[in-house]
Amino acid sequence: MSLSETALPFDDIRNLVKSMPGPDEEALQKVRDRDSQLTKPAGSLGRLEEIAEWLAAWSGNTPPKVSRPMVAIFASAHGVADEGVSAFPSAVNKQMVENFAAGGAAINQLCRVNDIGLKVFDLAVDMPTPSITREDAMDEANCAATMAYGMEALAGGIDLICLGEMGIGNTTVAAAVFHGLFGGEASDWIGRGTGVDDDGLARKREAVEKAVARLNGETDPLEILRKVGGREIAAMAGLIIAARLQRVPVIVDGFVTTAAAAVVYAMNPSGLDHCLFAHVSAEHAHGRVLERLGKDALFDFGMRLGEGSGAALAAGVVKAASEMHSGMATFADAGVSGKS
Amino acid sequence: MSLSETALPFDDIRNLVKSMPGPDEEALQKVRDRDSQLTKPAGSLGRLEEIAEWLAAWSGNTPPKVSRPMVAIFASAHGVADEGVSAFPSAVNKQMVENFAAGGAAINQLCRVNDIGLKVFDLAVDMPTPSITREDAMDEANCAATMAYGMEALAGGIDLICLGEMGIGNTTVAAAVFHGLFGGEASDWIGRGTGVDDDGLARKREAVEKAVARLNGETDPLEILRKVGGREIAAMAGLIIAARLQRVPVIVDGFVTTAAAAVVYAMNPSGLDHCLFAHVSAEHAHGRVLERLGKDALFDFGMRLGEGSGAALAAGVVKAASEMHSGMATFADAGVSGKS
Repeated sequence: MSLSETALPFDDIRNLVKSMPGPDEEALQKVRDRDSQLTKPAGSLGRLEEIAEWLAAWSGNTPPKVSRPMVAIFASAHGVADEGVSAFPSAVNKQMVENFAAGGAAINQLCRVNDIGLKVFDLAVDMPTPSITREDAMDEANCAATMAYGMEALAGGIDLICLGEMGIGNTTVAAAVFHGLFGGEASDWIGRGTGVDDDGLARKREAVEKAVARLNGETDPLEILRKVGGREIAAMAGLIIAARLQRVPVIVDGFVTTAAAAVVYAMNPSGLDHCLFAHVSAEHAHGRVLERLGKDALFDFGMRLGEGSGAALAAGVVKAASEMHSGMATFADAGVSGKS
Repeated sequence: MSLSETALPFDDIRNLVKSMPGPDEEALQKVRDRDSQLTKPAGSLGRLEEIAEWLAAWSGNTPPKVSRPMVAIFASAHGVADEGVSAFPSAVNKQMVENFAAGGAAINQLCRVNDIGLKVFDLAVDMPTPSITREDAMDEANCAATMAYGMEALAGGIDLICLGEMGIGNTTVAAAVFHGLFGGEASDWIGRGTGVDDDGLARKREAVEKAVARLNGETDPLEILRKVGGREIAAMAGLIIAARLQRVPVIVDGFVTTAAAAVVYAMNPSGLDHCLFAHVSAEHAHGRVLERLGKDALFDFGMRLGEGSGAALAAGVVKAASEMHSGMATFADAGVSGKS
């Protein structure tokens, strides 16, 4: 599904987003029918029942199953990180990619405990994109190729994909994408990221203002993505689109992964129906973004790490919902009396 | 630790509750020290970091670990169930105990997916307690013996205990306990349980009013428990107390398990410090009860099944928090640059 050699890559992506399939209504109905016969009061497992329906609707599998879940972490580097917007130096990008490989990061532990695969995609962490305060992060060909790269992450029979990212400076970049897409003020979309102080926060605001001023009122989501976004956001947007086409349900993580989702949403408001939002990040503005997208996150644990850490936790809940649905006995099987 | 043969059982229980140990401050400090060196921005894993601290503080283990988690389901039968307060007949109690044994219930699936042990304790499901609208559910000796029975559920090196229950009619009984402990009106504490209609809800309100009128202003938590409670609530209250004494962290499930917690809280407001509250139940009033207890539940999935289902999901998060803390590399180990 490489788009990197096409003549008009953004147009091809726009066409893919327009042609996104809807839910598998037959699978959905099968899950609802079975659920009504399971040995529990109707509706008593709340969100778990909704997740079982969602899995079936967007995978087409009944009973729904999660056999090969994966966290995909896209790592990238950002020129804007040199402008004092992060509490950590850009050197951390490469160091963390090595930490992922060595099994020492938070996400490694969360994947192990929930039996989830992990793949890290290094989007040239040694070669930062130009600072979005002064230049476009990507040209069209580069942005489209990066999206296509993200699309390819689904290879290998993955049946649940969790989005993750790593990139010092990328909450600034994500804030610029949200500001570009949704308007308002720069201060509506920035937060303390990995833990900047007040001066750092002021520099973030200024950077987002400068970046979005360069947009000159541009409203096309892909143009906003390439001009003020970053490679990890582009790759994850591509992955969200490919997952819909290949019927793989998606779990979105926190603030930065949601920027990728927001780009897809801006192109097609039903384009995130196959996405579950794991958690409300502690990063200021994430709650506001979720509201804009009409998404109700699974939990709010005050997390703000990235790496797909919230998505990996949510994947545990999704696996539980799937097992609940497929493994439970029916009233008839178990000889349990129904509602009187 | 059997209390069933003592002369003044309630007094013995009161003494145990008075002598509850505090947190292991040394273990807590060790976890905080290690957490500050892990390869993540300080505080970025939010609630997971708090859970790692909580596990260490109340188990004494550093690094904290969850090697033998267990869901304990206490099943009981209630005379008040014959008064039209539930959507299901009491015959379901025994049928569900058989369903647990056969592996067909929701909790079986949730335990399997999170690798948690499951034990079901049948508190005479064939012999309902007298209806609390007319008689005390238990006499003192019986209530104390049931609490002692619950205390014994911890045998076998369990290092995380999840409370679960099954008992047609027990949301009515739990509402009576809350009404007795916290005052207000019966309607403040009742809800639709497994799914009663408006008439059933009216009968529930009336049953709770009658039961609490019989209390005649009694304020002693153990007296309220034995008069308007039930065996599963007594057993779980005992288990909460024993877990504190034996340094086993507890996960409380939903509305009915919280009634057991509320009895302990009323005896000692710091008596629930070793308890994590899994979720806000869809049962009306659970949120209000959690507020009274000063507890912030992990999630709100609109669940109202019981069986320890919410606690089993939360145990997955607790295991993840434990693995996160113990398995992550430090900045020094991984050669990752710290905050600049």
